[in-house]
Amino acid sequence: MAIEFIDDSPGITDATGFAAGAIACDIREKGTDRLDLALVCSTAPCTAAGVFTLNDVKAAPVRVCQEILFAGKPLHGFVANSGNANACTGPQGLADAWEMAQRAATATGLPASSFLVCSTGRIGRALPMPRILAGITQASGALGATSAQGRSAAEAILTSDTKPKTCTARFPWQGKTVTVAAMAKGAGMIQPNMATMLAFLCTDAAASTEFLRVTLQTANRTTFNAITVDGDMSTNDTVLLLANGASGVDLAKTPPAARTLFAQAVEKVCAALAEKIVGDGEKISKVVAIKVQGAKDDATAEKVARAIGNSLLVKSSWFGEDPNWGRILDAAGYARVGLVEEKTDLFYDDTPVLLLGAAQNQHLARWKEIVRQPRFRVTLDLRLGAAAYRLLASDVTEGYVNYNKSE
Amino acid sequence: MAIEFIDDSPGITDATGFAAGAIACDIREKGTDRLDLALVCSTAPCTAAGVFTLNDVKAAPVRVCQEILFAGKPLHGFVANSGNANACTGPQGLADAWEMAQRAATATGLPASSFLVCSTGRIGRALPMPRILAGITQASGALGATSAQGRSAAEAILTSDTKPKTCTARFPWQGKTVTVAAMAKGAGMIQPNMATMLAFLCTDAAASTEFLRVTLQTANRTTFNAITVDGDMSTNDTVLLLANGASGVDLAKTPPAARTLFAQAVEKVCAALAEKIVGDGEKISKVVAIKVQGAKDDATAEKVARAIGNSLLVKSSWFGEDPNWGRILDAAGYARVGLVEEKTDLFYDDTPVLLLGAAQNQHLARWKEIVRQPRFRVTLDLRLGAAAYRLLASDVTEGYVNYNKSE
Repeated sequence: MAIEFIDDSPGITDATGFAAGAIACDIREKGTDRLDLALVCSTAPCTAAGVFTLNDVKAAPVRVCQEILFAGKPLHGFVANSGNANACTGPQGLADAWEMAQRAATATGLPASSFLVCSTGRIGRALPMPRILAGITQASGALGATSAQGRSAAEAILTSDTKPKTCTARFPWQGKTVTVAAMAKGAGMIQPNMATMLAFLCTDAAASTEFLRVTLQTANRTTFNAITVDGDMSTNDTVLLLANGASGVDLAKTPPAARTLFAQAVEKVCAALAEKIVGDGEKISKVVAIKVQGAKDDATAEKVARAIGNSLLVKSSWFGEDPNWGRILDAAGYARVGLVEEKTDLFYDDTPVLLLGAAQNQHLARWKEIVRQPRFRVTLDLRLGAAAYRLLASDVTEGYVNYNKSE
Repeated sequence: MAIEFIDDSPGITDATGFAAGAIACDIREKGTDRLDLALVCSTAPCTAAGVFTLNDVKAAPVRVCQEILFAGKPLHGFVANSGNANACTGPQGLADAWEMAQRAATATGLPASSFLVCSTGRIGRALPMPRILAGITQASGALGATSAQGRSAAEAILTSDTKPKTCTARFPWQGKTVTVAAMAKGAGMIQPNMATMLAFLCTDAAASTEFLRVTLQTANRTTFNAITVDGDMSTNDTVLLLANGASGVDLAKTPPAARTLFAQAVEKVCAALAEKIVGDGEKISKVVAIKVQGAKDDATAEKVARAIGNSLLVKSSWFGEDPNWGRILDAAGYARVGLVEEKTDLFYDDTPVLLLGAAQNQHLARWKEIVRQPRFRVTLDLRLGAAAYRLLASDVTEGYVNYNKSE
């Protein structure tokens, strides 16, 4: 049985029983009609799981989602806005996040505390609540399961992203079809343990909360948690997975093979969205896959990969298409995991750069070709053990700095 | 008794008995007559101490300096070149570094293994040894203790620095004068545990190796180790302190007060050079002093300060003169030291930004004035304990990224 993958799909409305409504309520207070609020709803009750930022400073909606998920009651969807992160907004922010979730429930006529809430955008500014609450009511009137409605929801959650990020994975199971459909936003503050990134996965499988949690956490580790644009972890990072059972497939009652397929579908969707997030990082020009192998243990491998992927000097040289391997080795060295220069191999794609610490300068012309590509691989073999880690990183550009001068 | 401080002094020739010679030997292989090699020599034997990069990848000259200092024999000076770091150059690089030290000894007619050696510049390229060796011989013929010779040495060690960095501190002791004279270079890879930074302190006091080591390490902690430009730690970072006793003051035989004055002089010189290094960071436009206080312990305070000082988003907003405190709080939060948003105070200079987590928006106009200054302070009070840490950081500019695209 194969998993069918649809890139740039309509997104969450691909999953049976999920409706979306997106509207413009001028959260940015700029008088434009840009879509900035999305409501997603399943009349059938859902189980759900979430992973969230590890930042000590958690935005109000993150805290509200964690409380709602902890309560473990059946859910019916979520409301998400862009333009304002509702972070560092104190008790008022918390009250506002609760009120958004509450309004989603009353507007759809569904039970209280059955909607999750996410926000992304500027930190430290109170939400324009009257417009947001009116917007949620309006969005509930615009709910529908068409492709256009799915696409509008994916658009409404964007901030500095240049394009919507959606995909769908499906697989057949005993005459039925299980769908995992998703949308995400990214762009800045993209690093360890996610970023100002929101991702929403909706599936029409039925599944236990515990199974969803394990599946999402497992997928998250090698996808959303293994990307970096700027090394900044946000206050709002959230990935949600909702399962409404509308496909008629209950993963708690199938043979293990169905659960394996489902986990693969979730991983595929997360990997595709994570790659889209890095590829659409603010003003970036390159996506580089950093693989550190031969490490003593996983933590060591990850530490070295992140030191390389977050080095401003390494990232600047990628922007400049300069095969400056000295900066890569320098960054790996200051991760201080016991790298031994004389044991270290380094490759651009499959071309040797260092073998046992010695530069293979005869390949210089080929190195230059490789780093001119929009995507390439850096493989560092420490030759100290068997652990490996893969991190997807972007370069840093003058455009990034200019773009982030002010908001 | 007061310490006299002379900023932008002639540098190391201010200390009695230290001669300098600087020459151009085209280490960059660009056919220019830019000064790129400095020889510093004291005919009277010196005790010495050094602090070095903690990078796993240590350049050949760093390894050679560590071996020579470990041997503990009397020293007579050092040779330093710019344009090539002699890092990641394998066994040949190590042999070359030893040969440079050796040539300095033979050219001056002083004992073998009595010269230290430092290099800074591009990583991963073999030194042009014939020109360097001829250069050392030539420099030994140009040795002298004039101000002009001190200034030439300070110029020869520069890489992307826009200006030489020198200063001198002196204090009287029982009719004699003790001088600590110094020069440094910085500019890129400036972060934790130093950077591609070299600093040389020469004093005409006599002192034990152990006293020099403790004094230098203590000063280093709050000066060279507490600065960041780009968060990248180099393979070559070195600070050396040489003491030749030519002033006639032997710190091993004075009352403690003289040692205290000496330690203060060393600290003053290190602090001044560290500030010059950040202020002359590659294409930077601001120097920001980050003070984290009210932390549970020193390590926690330092971790938060470094998270803020190395955040690409924070640094970009400084460049943009945007008082974006949300990014500062976000960075402090992802340091993950248990920050409690509702307890946290934040100030730009002495103006409140957050008090107990609540934004003091009535001061917005003042915040904007402060962040427009070329230098300002950010104070974050966690209100969790009594520990504090101060880090001197720069912004990041489009110019930095453009400059570092290639070398």
